Amino acid sequence: MKDIQIRPALDADFAAMWPIFQALVAGGDTYTFDADTGADVCRAYWFGPGVQSYVAVMGGERLLGMYRLVANQPGHGGHVANAAFMVDPAAQGVGVGLLLGRHCLERARQCGYLAMQFNFVVSTNIGALMLWKKLGFAVVGTLPKAFRHAQLGYVDAYVMYQLFGEPNQWPL
Amino acid sequence: MKDIQIRPALDADFAAMWPIFQALVAGGDTYTFDADTGADVCRAYWFGPGVQSYVAVMGGERLLGMYRLVANQPGHGGHVANAAFMVDPAAQGVGVGLLLGRHCLERARQCGYLAMQFNFVVSTNIGALMLWKKLGFAVVGTLPKAFRHAQLGYVDAYVMYQLFGEPNQWPL
Repeated sequence: MKDIQIRPALDADFAAMWPIFQALVAGGDTYTFDADTGADVCRAYWFGPGVQSYVAVMGGERLLGMYRLVANQPGHGGHVANAAFMVDPAAQGVGVGLLLGRHCLERARQCGYLAMQFNFVVSTNIGALMLWKKLGFAVVGTLPKAFRHAQLGYVDAYVMYQLFGEPNQWPL
Repeated sequence: MKDIQIRPALDADFAAMWPIFQALVAGGDTYTFDADTGADVCRAYWFGPGVQSYVAVMGGERLLGMYRLVANQPGHGGHVANAAFMVDPAAQGVGVGLLLGRHCLERARQCGYLAMQFNFVVSTNIGALMLWKKLGFAVVGTLPKAFRHAQLGYVDAYVMYQLFGEPNQWPL
């Protein structure tokens, strides 16, 4: 993994991000986006206002995955970050998600966030669940039948959450 | 309450919706929006793409409150509705929220939604909690210290949820 670099996403990266997005949403098993989601929606997701995105690149040229970091709520909820991750199906299972997850948590702390929330982790996505638990997240809520899985029908989704430090020591 | 009508919000209603929004966010105790949120953000919240908004009007002219109904997620999560409510502080405690809530649930069913989710109910907002429980919602998740309350500091927020009917009878 030593030749994998994580750096801010550039406009020029979109050409490599778009097929990863398409491949992942085609499954209908992990992301809410429909298979026919347009490139404009994808572009806004990764490069819209208030979004900071990072990509994992191998050998300086091959894009393996990416994450987006945003505030989960405005104003009085703006101390909680939200993030989403996508890894090229061809590069899954080798630790790219773990690298991206660690980088994202560090970046969130640098930006002054005090916690991170995932709003929608599909309950049947065991790989994601295990990864997020390994990185310190806990399931704090269950959304009954909130995901229409392409193969399994309606399944639950989880809300996962992680506090950074002790809330009684947070700045007000 | 018999002279209160609930109807779709019109552009012309914004002049009356804006001061209600401002009065409520000024408190910093129930909504995440900062007190200085601009009118453009408020307008997009009530009249943006994919948003349907309804207003409660008394005697055909006085706007007492409003709700917005949207899909909580795209695509594979698009069967779950999300809604938000605001009632003029001068008209609180007389049942306007209950009227709006019932109307919203009925409207969501009419639109084909199969469940409704509130992403962020401030735990100290007892009036809202009691109202949503009365209307069939349950707390399905707790977001630790996710709200920076203007008086109380960091407090929890709840995710509340309601299924419409039996999921095993939902259309796929």
